[in-house]
Amino acid sequence: MKRSFIREILENTTNETISFAGGLPDEKLFPHIQLKESASRVMNDAISFQYSTSTGLDSLKEKIAQFYNDSGFATSKENIMITSGSQQALDIIARYNNSKDITIEAPSYLGAMNIFNLNNMKQNVVNLNTNGCDTFMFNASFKNSKLAYLIPDFQNPTGYTYSKEKREDVANIVKKYDGILIEDAPYSQIYFEEEYESISKSIPNNSYHLGSFSKTLAPALRIGWIRASKELLEPLIAYKEAMDLHTNGLAQHILNDYLEDKNNFLSHKKLLRKIYKKKMQIFTSFLNEILPSFNYTKPKGGMFIYGKFENIDSSELIKECMKNGVVFVPGAEFYNNINSNNEIRFNFTHCTSNEIYKGLNIIKKIIGD
Amino acid sequence: MKRSFIREILENTTNETISFAGGLPDEKLFPHIQLKESASRVMNDAISFQYSTSTGLDSLKEKIAQFYNDSGFATSKENIMITSGSQQALDIIARYNNSKDITIEAPSYLGAMNIFNLNNMKQNVVNLNTNGCDTFMFNASFKNSKLAYLIPDFQNPTGYTYSKEKREDVANIVKKYDGILIEDAPYSQIYFEEEYESISKSIPNNSYHLGSFSKTLAPALRIGWIRASKELLEPLIAYKEAMDLHTNGLAQHILNDYLEDKNNFLSHKKLLRKIYKKKMQIFTSFLNEILPSFNYTKPKGGMFIYGKFENIDSSELIKECMKNGVVFVPGAEFYNNINSNNEIRFNFTHCTSNEIYKGLNIIKKIIGD
Repeated sequence: MKRSFIREILENTTNETISFAGGLPDEKLFPHIQLKESASRVMNDAISFQYSTSTGLDSLKEKIAQFYNDSGFATSKENIMITSGSQQALDIIARYNNSKDITIEAPSYLGAMNIFNLNNMKQNVVNLNTNGCDTFMFNASFKNSKLAYLIPDFQNPTGYTYSKEKREDVANIVKKYDGILIEDAPYSQIYFEEEYESISKSIPNNSYHLGSFSKTLAPALRIGWIRASKELLEPLIAYKEAMDLHTNGLAQHILNDYLEDKNNFLSHKKLLRKIYKKKMQIFTSFLNEILPSFNYTKPKGGMFIYGKFENIDSSELIKECMKNGVVFVPGAEFYNNINSNNEIRFNFTHCTSNEIYKGLNIIKKIIGD
Repeated sequence: MKRSFIREILENTTNETISFAGGLPDEKLFPHIQLKESASRVMNDAISFQYSTSTGLDSLKEKIAQFYNDSGFATSKENIMITSGSQQALDIIARYNNSKDITIEAPSYLGAMNIFNLNNMKQNVVNLNTNGCDTFMFNASFKNSKLAYLIPDFQNPTGYTYSKEKREDVANIVKKYDGILIEDAPYSQIYFEEEYESISKSIPNNSYHLGSFSKTLAPALRIGWIRASKELLEPLIAYKEAMDLHTNGLAQHILNDYLEDKNNFLSHKKLLRKIYKKKMQIFTSFLNEILPSFNYTKPKGGMFIYGKFENIDSSELIKECMKNGVVFVPGAEFYNNINSNNEIRFNFTHCTSNEIYKGLNIIKKIIGD
């Protein structure tokens, strides 16, 4: 099995490397002092350190269910399973669907494609446009696979977002064939203009909706979840249990305490949106100035800017860039069976303005833009 | 896939149920205030909340490697992979060995058998005696499977421990066929009389040695590890990465800080051994007094007492017991393809003396002993 290029980059860069590679949140924004206070409270009670239930803490599941209810998507704690990040959520679902066909976007999230490969799932790709996937292709593929994996909000790697119409089209196709949509939504709360309604909301019995605190709060908590009907969730419990018994209890208790005051998370997300939007604007204005030949679509949220240089092989470019202290992810990594292309994914949330300026200038020097 | 009976019991018992079922440590012994202090220190630094590397924190891997070095088993941090509990460690190894045959003890750890089933591994069982497995049977099975899963220290469920001779015999057989031993050792540090040398120590290139902090420190940390040669460890990294990116970073930082002062853990383990030995003695003396017809072998460590009543089907008995507020695990759960037998596993670490006394008397009343 192939390792994730991004994680290899993460492990091989030094403190001096300017990294536009990983989907790393800005650690300066972590509410670590508030989380520390939560930790102090829950760690006074020894029971926070004991084994707990496979699907997660009831009180935390209730709070996550409430996020959905607040947006008009009726959900109870029985519809929620807490997982060790949404990476594991996806692996649990994939194991249950072992060896099946699955419809995915091209390009798509590398970690998801690794999971599908690991679980012997044949991936049928549909083209992704700036307003969502090609629904004609989606219909043709889904008719047979009856299972799809999509990232409709500020997609990884492209940053593209499904329009309202595309969402309706996808929901209708899933309903028509009575199939299942895996809707991965780690970035949905990081919107810069408007919040989008999940596709799952209109097909609650035909979807797994995956969420995560890694992008909005802190990755080290490793807490994600699956929202699904009880019928879909029930057979997954035995898998979750076999895989790691249950998700880190300590992190669940800390997070649960942090979420007790609803305002904590709400105001944190507001701040995140404001600052990440600012960072995106800085990144794109530097891009326009320093690398004018880079062709991209401005994202409406999330963490990534995706685009391409004409006539430059990004899988070759990254090698030169790594030597010169700047990294990004070349587009080929987000496709199965492609070794190189001219696409590039830049993360804009982690670097400072100075680093962005410096990093893009290094790339400019290498390509002679 | 079948769910773990033990975890179903855990989820269905009330606060009033007297449980001899789970392998639960006594939460009164968790060093939760020390861990809280560690948490306060590491959570001052926002970087503790960021993504980290797939194989675990370097400093924590070094400390775990040092445990091995202290016992004369040469190990460096490159030989260690941190996992989300040793449950995940086993799943990673099983995924890599998907569909292979594996030699296991009968009875064995239910969670391991679930993993092997999940990964389509054919399990060949060898009988387990009080001083270790039947090595004649082991040789016959291992000759073909070349892969084995054993729990040599205070086994789950039996509490049996491999003698020095049995350990040598197993090591020699593994070497002879150049196969691989998965040595699961979550209880190895909970010895009441003497510490045993791991089998892996004499076959360092033919073994995965699995460890865990769940039994010695706190299960909610969900931190286990694999100790193996670099060659054996390397191909597992891509699996670990696909499964959950990396183990909970916060818990790793807290644990790493707690272990900084070696004395913390050493004195904690000493206390644990003393108190669990006492609890085992209390449990067995109550057993002898209240249920004299229960036939068992006194364990030399670990968390379990295993034995049987003649002519009583424990899978039927548990149903009556559950109704009357006391639970244990019936022996059939620890075998593949057996629906009932007369064996019982009692956990002795979690209950108070009063609960043990009360619980065993409820069983006495039901069976009329």
